[in-house]
Amino acid sequence: MAKRENISSSVIRRLPRYYRFLSEIEKQGVTHISSRELSKRMSLTASQVRQDFNCFGEFGQQGIGYSVKKLRYEIENILGIQCRYPAILIGAGNIGTAIAKQVIFDSRCFDLVGIFDKDKQKIGSNILDITITDTERIEEFCSNTLVNTAILCVPKSAAEELSDRLYKLGIRSFWNFSHYDLSMRFPDVIVENVHLGDSLMTLCFMINQQQSKNKAQS
Amino acid sequence: MAKRENISSSVIRRLPRYYRFLSEIEKQGVTHISSRELSKRMSLTASQVRQDFNCFGEFGQQGIGYSVKKLRYEIENILGIQCRYPAILIGAGNIGTAIAKQVIFDSRCFDLVGIFDKDKQKIGSNILDITITDTERIEEFCSNTLVNTAILCVPKSAAEELSDRLYKLGIRSFWNFSHYDLSMRFPDVIVENVHLGDSLMTLCFMINQQQSKNKAQS
Repeated sequence: MAKRENISSSVIRRLPRYYRFLSEIEKQGVTHISSRELSKRMSLTASQVRQDFNCFGEFGQQGIGYSVKKLRYEIENILGIQCRYPAILIGAGNIGTAIAKQVIFDSRCFDLVGIFDKDKQKIGSNILDITITDTERIEEFCSNTLVNTAILCVPKSAAEELSDRLYKLGIRSFWNFSHYDLSMRFPDVIVENVHLGDSLMTLCFMINQQQSKNKAQS
Repeated sequence: MAKRENISSSVIRRLPRYYRFLSEIEKQGVTHISSRELSKRMSLTASQVRQDFNCFGEFGQQGIGYSVKKLRYEIENILGIQCRYPAILIGAGNIGTAIAKQVIFDSRCFDLVGIFDKDKQKIGSNILDITITDTERIEEFCSNTLVNTAILCVPKSAAEELSDRLYKLGIRSFWNFSHYDLSMRFPDVIVENVHLGDSLMTLCFMINQQQSKNKAQS
């Protein structure tokens, strides 16, 4: 039985990667994989892999390894990506357009049901088969259509005002590309932040660290 | 003296957030902040904040708290964002265009020196003041211009071929938006992955977990 209660956030962060990798090798016809092989292919240690899988029950068999299909299926269940949640996206700029297409094409777990922007030049045009609607009409839209999740692709200043309105509409989960710290204002909402500036600073840190190491060695 | 050698990756991930927050309150004229206040404002525990800052030396004074300016400055130094690295971006689609603008406008640590795409319709047009060049000409470009970092905004299939070429050109750091696992092929490169699909699966997991909790309580 899966022990799903206390999975740490670092394990959770690795689950999508395991899932993608297992889906890929399943398609290639691989039926079993050892923790050693899996760790090698995913740049982790074998003991880390075993510990991770131990968090949600044991599937490995001595000498045979993990069943790829069972493991992929179990991770799919833990992630819950067989569910489908209706989502709206606000901010149809470059990043918003890219994200809308990603959700429409790739996402197993979200149905994009509406796209909003305040730019009169964008309103009425389409991203794939979804028409961009005036942000002013979010309340009207949400009174007619069930919406679970909002994807915020707007600047920080707009996110502040929008999140108030979306919260009032009962929306409690956000995929947040703005720099606005939603969880500070609404501690009860679910927020997955994608902060590209932070990601870039992290890259910068790693480059500096590498350069210091190289200097120390030379 | 800062103990910068063994900072864990989870601390590193928090540094950009500390940095942003401290920069913000510094602008507002705040000179000192306690670990308790800082933790409250950042949704962390006070002991976590103290532990994090302890990783790179101690700056807090009993009863006064941390000097915002000194702490911000120290984190800036640890992240190394006062450095500037020349970067090229490959793939000027929606996401690439958004990222290019982000790097040009926001980034303190990277100078975007070139943008490449294989689409003949895009080649020759501009993103801000940078002209999109044919991907075929990357080698020529890099023989004339110092490039430290590549930003990959291309599909997985293209990333595989491109990363080979970029590696041969001596590029060892990547901001990777493709789904291609660079560090598997080149264990010696620095890679900061932004995997939007994984981020979406994580959001899905959090929503499911919340719904299970709500069901259990009702």
